[in-house]
Amino acid sequence: MLHHRVPTRFLSVDDVATLVRRQGLVTTLQGLMACLQADFLRWGAFDKCPRLASHTAEGVIELMPISDGRTYSFKYVNGHPHNGRLGLPTVMAFGVLADVHTGTPQLLSELTLTTALRTAATSVLAARVLARPDSAVMALIGNGAQSEFQALAFHHLMGIHTLRLFDVDPSATARLVSHLADRGLRCVVCHSAEEAAQGADIVTTATADKRNATIVHDTMLRPGMHLNAVGGDCPGKTELAPGVLQAASVFVEYEPQTRVEGDVQQMPPDFPVTELWQVLAGLAPGRTTADQVTVFDSVGFALEDFSALRYLHDAAQRLDLGQALPLIPAMVDPRNLYGVLSRTPSRAAISPVEHVS
Amino acid sequence: MLHHRVPTRFLSVDDVATLVRRQGLVTTLQGLMACLQADFLRWGAFDKCPRLASHTAEGVIELMPISDGRTYSFKYVNGHPHNGRLGLPTVMAFGVLADVHTGTPQLLSELTLTTALRTAATSVLAARVLARPDSAVMALIGNGAQSEFQALAFHHLMGIHTLRLFDVDPSATARLVSHLADRGLRCVVCHSAEEAAQGADIVTTATADKRNATIVHDTMLRPGMHLNAVGGDCPGKTELAPGVLQAASVFVEYEPQTRVEGDVQQMPPDFPVTELWQVLAGLAPGRTTADQVTVFDSVGFALEDFSALRYLHDAAQRLDLGQALPLIPAMVDPRNLYGVLSRTPSRAAISPVEHVS
Repeated sequence: MLHHRVPTRFLSVDDVATLVRRQGLVTTLQGLMACLQADFLRWGAFDKCPRLASHTAEGVIELMPISDGRTYSFKYVNGHPHNGRLGLPTVMAFGVLADVHTGTPQLLSELTLTTALRTAATSVLAARVLARPDSAVMALIGNGAQSEFQALAFHHLMGIHTLRLFDVDPSATARLVSHLADRGLRCVVCHSAEEAAQGADIVTTATADKRNATIVHDTMLRPGMHLNAVGGDCPGKTELAPGVLQAASVFVEYEPQTRVEGDVQQMPPDFPVTELWQVLAGLAPGRTTADQVTVFDSVGFALEDFSALRYLHDAAQRLDLGQALPLIPAMVDPRNLYGVLSRTPSRAAISPVEHVS
Repeated sequence: MLHHRVPTRFLSVDDVATLVRRQGLVTTLQGLMACLQADFLRWGAFDKCPRLASHTAEGVIELMPISDGRTYSFKYVNGHPHNGRLGLPTVMAFGVLADVHTGTPQLLSELTLTTALRTAATSVLAARVLARPDSAVMALIGNGAQSEFQALAFHHLMGIHTLRLFDVDPSATARLVSHLADRGLRCVVCHSAEEAAQGADIVTTATADKRNATIVHDTMLRPGMHLNAVGGDCPGKTELAPGVLQAASVFVEYEPQTRVEGDVQQMPPDFPVTELWQVLAGLAPGRTTADQVTVFDSVGFALEDFSALRYLHDAAQRLDLGQALPLIPAMVDPRNLYGVLSRTPSRAAISPVEHVS
């Protein structure tokens, strides 16, 4: 625990990268998946709401709060498909973990890197109950910032050995291939989404355009296929043709949010969907036959960031990572806020955690 | 401007205290009031929503987002009336200013101190159109963390020369009196809210209990009185008797939020209220007669934090305050998020702003 006078731990992008390197990527993804599974199984304990989005023509900024009555978390995340032209990431995120008992922010962490990790871990968690257990070949359509994480999570945690890759930008695919070179994965570079989907047991779509882009058509479906649709995540942004959803059993994270943001926004409000937690808890069937087509219409839900933040918080404490951030005032008399104005500022505004532990 | 690789400026509690000291408290309050006035006059330009609250028996944690289409801001704020027993502030807050064009977080700032400043500036902004211009005596009921800021703002910006003080805890009043000693204000310590209200032109209530506490009764009203009700700010937390509201013209910040959180939560949904911005814009009357009783049912609205954050951002740039916070990844190729995992961490995770300007 940090000193009570500076209770907020800050994890920078480099801190989280160090955390992943020290533990190993596979161990980190496994740990995240365990936290996600545990929290999805506590579904009823969470105070949930759809995320709060502020849309413009250029992109979206969202806040994603959630609480289990003991711990509160929120994530700030943007989605700006054209940021690449400015040398900025499409998606940037950070988040906070707070103590519900007092409202104290305990952790402020980067979540750009972490969002990619938790999204990949969630994808595998869903695929383990929705894809065929013998799945070995995955199409990965959209080879942007998330793609390495999806590729490695499905390889190490789901047994995928062959990737069929496609991106409208061949240089994105080339970067992905070079990153996967020593990882024991066979990479097949394809020239269209259709070609990538050929022979795939799992089709992962992770594209970024903010429009209704039909990445997967009905004609690309094969019996027993699992579709892991990661990229459609706001109104007007979809990846699957309506016929794909019609032909499949569709699974979602949190129905009220996915009805608005997910690929099912194209379907009538009574189009049947099953929440993933119900499958994990054994309350609803996942895949029932080898021929069934399944879709995980994933948009990203606050619970996943809650799980990721508590995972980071535990790991950072264990590995002694991060710095103490003077975000809230430390006062001898908490009613004496005015006194903060007249005191001498501390020399080191931000201190190494070990100095205040 | 910070280096584009570390675009987020961090202002700690000490940074904001330094900012206020360097400029002077009165200048800071005046500057905040000018920003508030300018933003209230742009009311229609903002994408507004009631804040998102997570309630428990012990307190509340809230997120308050707003955007004018160019700049987005949000505040995190808690309210835990019993935090004092744990040596923690009742209210703790921080906030972020982001560029809507790219979603980049530009400023992360403490807002505990700032919330007290912006609340006092908002109170005066309202009182200037709602209180009698010759107001000289103010009752200040609730002498907690906000009280010095209310006292000094009303003294320096509204011409109040006498304060009539009451708190259920006499030591809170004693602290307030000692802080106001050299400020040219006459302080009268009272033994009840009723006594404090006697002869007051303005009655400011800033109590913290999370319950329906009737601080101001109908019998305490006098013709021409202005009530600045700051403390009632969530469901089940009110300060004014229903009869007080019945007898007065009631002004609010943002009607959809105040109907739920303000003192008017006790009234029927069609109880007449006027939004402050309409008065400031000359679209609705404020005080019309010297005998009228007016109430500013203030709960705190996201626009006020937007104004405060942009004021802080400008002042911090001018005064070169704050540090560069590595909250989002700096990447040569923004699609190469995976590459962040393998790079060497920078030595100084958090850098002085001048080193990266």
